[in-house]
Amino acid sequence: MANGLLDGLVVLDLTRVLAGPFAGMLLADMGATVYKVEMPNVGDDSRAMGPFVNKQSVYFANFNRGKIGITLNLKAPEGKEIFKELVKKADVLIENYRPGTMEKLGLGYDVLKEVNPKLVYGAVSGFGHTGPYSKRPGYDIVGQAMGGLMSTSGWPGGAPTRTGTPMGDVLGGLNLAVGVLAAVVKAKSSGMGEKVDISLVDSVVSSMQNINMIYLTTGRIPERIGNRYESTYPYDSFKTKTTDVIIGAGNDKLYGLLCDLMERPDLKVDPRFVHVVDRVANHAAMKEEIEKWTINYTMDEVATMLDQHGIPGCPINTIDRLVADPHICGDRNMFPYCEHPEMGHLRMTNSALRFTNHPTDPTVPAPLLGQHNKDIYEGILGMTEEKIAELQAKGII
Amino acid sequence: MANGLLDGLVVLDLTRVLAGPFAGMLLADMGATVYKVEMPNVGDDSRAMGPFVNKQSVYFANFNRGKIGITLNLKAPEGKEIFKELVKKADVLIENYRPGTMEKLGLGYDVLKEVNPKLVYGAVSGFGHTGPYSKRPGYDIVGQAMGGLMSTSGWPGGAPTRTGTPMGDVLGGLNLAVGVLAAVVKAKSSGMGEKVDISLVDSVVSSMQNINMIYLTTGRIPERIGNRYESTYPYDSFKTKTTDVIIGAGNDKLYGLLCDLMERPDLKVDPRFVHVVDRVANHAAMKEEIEKWTINYTMDEVATMLDQHGIPGCPINTIDRLVADPHICGDRNMFPYCEHPEMGHLRMTNSALRFTNHPTDPTVPAPLLGQHNKDIYEGILGMTEEKIAELQAKGII
Repeated sequence: MANGLLDGLVVLDLTRVLAGPFAGMLLADMGATVYKVEMPNVGDDSRAMGPFVNKQSVYFANFNRGKIGITLNLKAPEGKEIFKELVKKADVLIENYRPGTMEKLGLGYDVLKEVNPKLVYGAVSGFGHTGPYSKRPGYDIVGQAMGGLMSTSGWPGGAPTRTGTPMGDVLGGLNLAVGVLAAVVKAKSSGMGEKVDISLVDSVVSSMQNINMIYLTTGRIPERIGNRYESTYPYDSFKTKTTDVIIGAGNDKLYGLLCDLMERPDLKVDPRFVHVVDRVANHAAMKEEIEKWTINYTMDEVATMLDQHGIPGCPINTIDRLVADPHICGDRNMFPYCEHPEMGHLRMTNSALRFTNHPTDPTVPAPLLGQHNKDIYEGILGMTEEKIAELQAKGII
Repeated sequence: MANGLLDGLVVLDLTRVLAGPFAGMLLADMGATVYKVEMPNVGDDSRAMGPFVNKQSVYFANFNRGKIGITLNLKAPEGKEIFKELVKKADVLIENYRPGTMEKLGLGYDVLKEVNPKLVYGAVSGFGHTGPYSKRPGYDIVGQAMGGLMSTSGWPGGAPTRTGTPMGDVLGGLNLAVGVLAAVVKAKSSGMGEKVDISLVDSVVSSMQNINMIYLTTGRIPERIGNRYESTYPYDSFKTKTTDVIIGAGNDKLYGLLCDLMERPDLKVDPRFVHVVDRVANHAAMKEEIEKWTINYTMDEVATMLDQHGIPGCPINTIDRLVADPHICGDRNMFPYCEHPEMGHLRMTNSALRFTNHPTDPTVPAPLLGQHNKDIYEGILGMTEEKIAELQAKGII
């Protein structure tokens, strides 16, 4: 990865499945040297998760592109010693085991900081490394439910609703990347490492910022209100001949433009809709009036008219539409390709990180299990071929 | 902020409302010196957004705690010159104007990097600074709709659904923090700054990682499937006497424990439910069987039984429950207090960033408009009191 922003940063990535690997992926996309350390013969659980191409997991391939694959048995005493040698050469370690697992292996932060005082140790877990629930298993859906997101997503009278993507894991991975990079900034100047402790539940609670503030300030418990917002209207989804469309005419000027476009000057002076507060209070009636217009067109027809008249709005994209979009897929290159040795021409989902002078588009495929063992154990740790063969035979690598 | 991880990092924060201020908040919580630069007499739009305490916006107070408040009119020639003096003393600048706005002000990255080559310039916008849609206005709901999140969130047969929090803005803010910190790591070693260009739409598309991969690999368009997951079952919400409860018995072992707890050994050998693939294929029948049991209890009763039997699961928390939770509010301190000069004892929502040796809990309140003008214009830029009074009279600060 030439000219990467994080060139020279060495990361040991012990993570599995999503939240942790997502953070490692962001660092690899930015040019860090990320060693994906997996259990010999087994590997990351997500190697068994679909979809598959030529029996290889696309799930794994996507979150682990650009990483260097080595195997190492951290339960074997010899494996632990080899791991400490790797820690000496690393800037960052990330893991998403259940809290206490690394300590049980004798490889907790307290041990590893003695091995390398500059090490930034990043952990992401369901509930974090402290507190009464810390030992509970944490999954994405638990983060979304415990963190308040599900209770506030969905429709009045309907069920609490999770997001279509594992958002708890994504938020946890992003927070881990923020924490690790902040600690790297410090370590580079102070020579002292740090332990970063990210929880999926905290990450979701933190995403609820102003929603929490409504309760903390007014005592009102925020409920499910569908697609509208509490502070302005019309700012919602509206029925069309096809899929619903988004209109975000959040102030008086934009509302005026919308009334003009709908050829409904009467709505500008209708006492129910004159000011933002009126439109919020009478949102149901407002929606009915707007849908009298939107229902005559398709989603794309409405979105095009809004765009032509300078009114914020957009289609609700399904995934096939993202992939066909000239801006998202074209200019912003959200679905780049790499050539995978077993999967061939593989399309991935990009990160959102873009820099003027440093490329981040992934081009190197995810490793096969232990693919780079020889490179690392010989090239970096200086082992002989015989030693490597012996470790392999003993199941240590 | 003593002992902050980012002590000494100077950030100029020109952002308004949510995505940008959220990123600045994360940096301030970690100890960076963040100058919140606002338009004289007007300030951040979110100062007018509720809820309010003593006429002060809680919305603003939450996202801008720990920042230093100065006013500066960037449209006035003298304001631009003062701004460039501040840029010389800064490590980072963040803004969330519509793309092109800073260039129109004569303060685009190309100009500012000449003023300070080390500057890390971070921008977050609806569609990013490049591509055919870059000039379109971007709002959270547009990010959620354009990025594919809404089309995949919700219930079969129901409407596309946004999240209860402005998740597009939160994801954009987190990505901005990741990009800025990575560029700071580089700038510290190379002496060269960088421009970071984050888009809300990209941020949402990137959060859809494996959901996108299903379409890219198989051609199937992911749809709304409620709270269940495609890869395992039972892993869903289930009806109780009160609110729905989450059960995540994702593998055969946990499923066996659940059958034992429900006193339904017959379900273990029922051919519809023997393997994970069977349970996924027959998820509707499986849900029905499980709800025969859960419906006899309250949400909390089921959650407690699951916890006692080592089966992953949890309540679906409303916001009041978050605030009363001994783990979330207690140990993890997700709702810390500060003393605000006009709002008094104010409770905020914490970030998810936790470090072993560096505190991140916010303690300093958000600034009043221009509160620190004298400190900065006299203390940092060395202006006389007369000069400051003159600039104030002219509406430049």
